[in-house]
Amino acid sequence: MSAESIEAGFGKLFLIPTPLSRTGENTTLPAATLEIARSLDHFAVENIRQAASFLQWIQHPVPEFEVHFFPLSKSTSELRLQEYVNLMLNGTDLGVLTDAGCPGVADPGADLVKQAHKFGIKVVPLTGPASPILALMGLGLGGQKFAFSGYLPSKAEARATMLRELEQHSAQSGSTELFMETPFRNLETLKAATSTLRMDTQLGVAANLTSPDELIIMCEVSEWQRRKFPDIQKIPAIFGLKAAQDVQLAQKLKRKAVKKKFSA
Amino acid sequence: MSAESIEAGFGKLFLIPTPLSRTGENTTLPAATLEIARSLDHFAVENIRQAASFLQWIQHPVPEFEVHFFPLSKSTSELRLQEYVNLMLNGTDLGVLTDAGCPGVADPGADLVKQAHKFGIKVVPLTGPASPILALMGLGLGGQKFAFSGYLPSKAEARATMLRELEQHSAQSGSTELFMETPFRNLETLKAATSTLRMDTQLGVAANLTSPDELIIMCEVSEWQRRKFPDIQKIPAIFGLKAAQDVQLAQKLKRKAVKKKFSA
Repeated sequence: MSAESIEAGFGKLFLIPTPLSRTGENTTLPAATLEIARSLDHFAVENIRQAASFLQWIQHPVPEFEVHFFPLSKSTSELRLQEYVNLMLNGTDLGVLTDAGCPGVADPGADLVKQAHKFGIKVVPLTGPASPILALMGLGLGGQKFAFSGYLPSKAEARATMLRELEQHSAQSGSTELFMETPFRNLETLKAATSTLRMDTQLGVAANLTSPDELIIMCEVSEWQRRKFPDIQKIPAIFGLKAAQDVQLAQKLKRKAVKKKFSA
Repeated sequence: MSAESIEAGFGKLFLIPTPLSRTGENTTLPAATLEIARSLDHFAVENIRQAASFLQWIQHPVPEFEVHFFPLSKSTSELRLQEYVNLMLNGTDLGVLTDAGCPGVADPGADLVKQAHKFGIKVVPLTGPASPILALMGLGLGGQKFAFSGYLPSKAEARATMLRELEQHSAQSGSTELFMETPFRNLETLKAATSTLRMDTQLGVAANLTSPDELIIMCEVSEWQRRKFPDIQKIPAIFGLKAAQDVQLAQKLKRKAVKKKFSA
């Protein structure tokens, strides 16, 4: 089946963001996202309990035991994904729900989307909270160019190497580098960053995003070394860094590119 | 003033996303975002007419001529930004409004945020539509690692070089590479990508995001070469690519890193 056959009676694949924090005050989902989530009764989910609790919270009109839940994780087999695709080929709309944030962004979902595109099924990403974007906005390190690298390595040496690589990449390209950590290693990572990075590198942390105790701090490494570390242990956090532009290196790379161009 | 003095009677800086498409159906802003936007009467804006029209659209309660608008662009001087910071230091809340999408993400705003952090002013990023994230979700290329590189160079040769660099970076690191184009060059860019990239590279385009005629297409370059190009000229679009992992190169880089580690 070719991708041109899009729509023609097929169901659609809706990517439904969920809140980053479960506080009563949380109102980070737009009306359209809530409305579509309430209109579906088939969901591919990262975690069935989380998904059921989300549907209850948004007052989904279908009783919990009449909603169809299908497992979705990094390890969901292609055969299984094909079953979900078949559902949509037969006209059923399918929603994707992950535990928090946007499906397919540091969360499962992408494999199913890829499979859906192969069969010409319409994919509809819905608006909701995305922690990398909220961190990018809140840190103010610049979002013309940015990269999200996921989790840092857990071992100290490899982590330091990675931090230096991100810093170097930022210095060369002018990009903001975002990364994250398993929450119980947040403080360790912040300490590692402040002792590994250059004094004039901007370093920030955005924790508990969208919750009433949201915490966003950004300053130079030299200032981090002077201040008390914030209480970010065991809470979800995104880190960001931006290095002072390495003018010499940028020029060297540019000369190399020009040379390559003329010798080609 | 140190960053520890956060809050203490200061105003806050609210980063307010705006819709990506102005259709009646557009409901991509969460209740909390709308509520906060309606509660402010001081705004730093990319474009005063766009900002005024946005406030009218959300039924802002203060008459237009009583709202205070301040210009905000890449070229806003540091002196001017300091005036805005002074407002907040004196207790006034300030909102940031760009033309479409999230302030500070491929849009102005970051310089003011950076300045605000220096003075310990609380920065609050609000949820709303972000085209790079919606594209990332919708293309299904994977969001564990991704990079957004902004605009490609406009000249053909430099653009081809950049496309190959993005492809190589993706092959080495496994990242999804996102970029954009001035809308009237969309088709030219898509053609360039399909004739420059490897046959087995995944290439996608996400156009008119959040609007009723949203268009999201993703397939391998080899399939792009067979199909009719979609009508994406002059409409906002985000492109994404992911290359087949270059296993040899990845191993070579890993060996190099290990060697470096042991020789250090």
